[in-house]
Amino acid sequence: MSEEPEKSSPATEQLEKCSMVVCSGDMDKVMAAFIIATTAASMGRETHMFFTFWGLKAIQKGNPTGSTFMERMLSVMNRGGIDRIGPSRLNFGGLGRWMFKKMMKEKKVTPLAELRQTAIDLGVELLACEMSMDVMGIKREDLIDEVADVVGAGSYCHLALQGKTLFI
Amino acid sequence: MSEEPEKSSPATEQLEKCSMVVCSGDMDKVMAAFIIATTAASMGRETHMFFTFWGLKAIQKGNPTGSTFMERMLSVMNRGGIDRIGPSRLNFGGLGRWMFKKMMKEKKVTPLAELRQTAIDLGVELLACEMSMDVMGIKREDLIDEVADVVGAGSYCHLALQGKTLFI
Amino acid sequence: MSEEPEKSSPATEQLEKCSMVVCSGDMDKVMAAFIIATTAASMGRETHMFFTFWGLKAIQKGNPTGSTFMERMLSVMNRGGIDRIGPSRLNFGGLGRWMFKKMMKEKKVTPLAELRQTAIDLGVELLACEMSMDVMGIKREDLIDEVADVVGAGSYCHLALQGKTLFI
Repeated sequence: MSEEPEKSSPATEQLEKCSMVVCSGDMDKVMAAFIIATTAASMGRETHMFFTFWGLKAIQKGNPTGSTFMERMLSVMNRGGIDRIGPSRLNFGGLGRWMFKKMMKEKKVTPLAELRQTAIDLGVELLACEMSMDVMGIKREDLIDEVADVVGAGSYCHLALQGKTLFI
Repeated sequence: MSEEPEKSSPATEQLEKCSMVVCSGDMDKVMAAFIIATTAASMGRETHMFFTFWGLKAIQKGNPTGSTFMERMLSVMNRGGIDRIGPSRLNFGGLGRWMFKKMMKEKKVTPLAELRQTAIDLGVELLACEMSMDVMGIKREDLIDEVADVVGAGSYCHLALQGKTLFI
Repeated sequence: MSEEPEKSSPATEQLEKCSMVVCSGDMDKVMAAFIIATTAASMGRETHMFFTFWGLKAIQKGNPTGSTFMERMLSVMNRGGIDRIGPSRLNFGGLGRWMFKKMMKEKKVTPLAELRQTAIDLGVELLACEMSMDVMGIKREDLIDEVADVVGAGSYCHLALQGKTLFI
């Protein structure tokens, strides 16, 4: 984005940014988010993903988090890590996750962790929401190293206003 | 959309496309999706709906699906068909669906199946996500005939980049 | 975008509207909605929030609603009011709501009710969906006075087509 308010050529139009808020931590939503992000990036778009609340699970390393009692309890109930993500329906305490993973593997669908790596390789910028990390007691070191930055909602809005944006 | 990359007149601007990903299979979300789609189409917009994951329920005929054990189990747990769609909250194994349907009927709200028909009549294009159909073992013949095409995420992204887009 | 339908200066481009549909009544989603809305408004954007289905909880006064048996039952199961809103996961009949509120208070995060007030003070327009109010038996007087209007989906679509829009 050349940052002049008026986009003056078709080329600039083609470079309109893509951004998304990933607020959900469900397998189907997170998978959709990464598929859209990798597709947009491979179409040459500058793409940004802003992970907040349950969405943070997708960019956590997966270690237990938190220092207070409640933060640690939350971490037990909702342990982060992309391999722990289950579907929004029919999870049945992990059975659904296992079943979906098996079904995806049989159909040779790229697993979530690989899809995230592809996104990173294609230059998709992963951003983490400062406020929800603070509320949930998640620290920078609990996130995978590839996360580009920990930012506030203002940064997301700024990006969103420059192109297409989705709330997932 | 006259399909030249450079939009050259106000008229073309008015014809900016509308698209949405319908990832959710809940009554409230699916209803909102069809209401927005019919409204956009009746305002003269070219409108496309891309159904993925649970959203596929809204464009399935409603027959049992799948050939492997897991696919068939999934179909039992999450049988497709627009009349089987329940609200995202307070469903209580179908009671909520029955109650909402009754309340909507009393208030003379268009039922989901009719709303979908209106969308089709107004020219809204219904697209099904190839990958999630493959994972869940849903075949083309399990979808209603009015579905225009079974496509990949690339097709959705291409449409989304040409106008307004929502993730539902 | 250089199309000059009416946008003729950088200033006008900066004034592209922001709108969102708030269909969800979960704490995390509602909080994200108000944070994005206040941020957009404080960046000088005309911002509109259209509350529908469960999202209506966020702009209800909190009194019991409905006149028919089913409407009143729904109000008991899903009582409105911004202080009754719980997280989309791990609510456990209100425990999650209490825990999250406590965690947010400890981290000095603005509570939902205050965040909504800030949005109102910044001129964010709160709109209520006529159809879902009708279905659920919610009346104008059940909503907080600051709600600007009770409108149909057409009004939302009209706003959405004028700028950035999100479905939450």
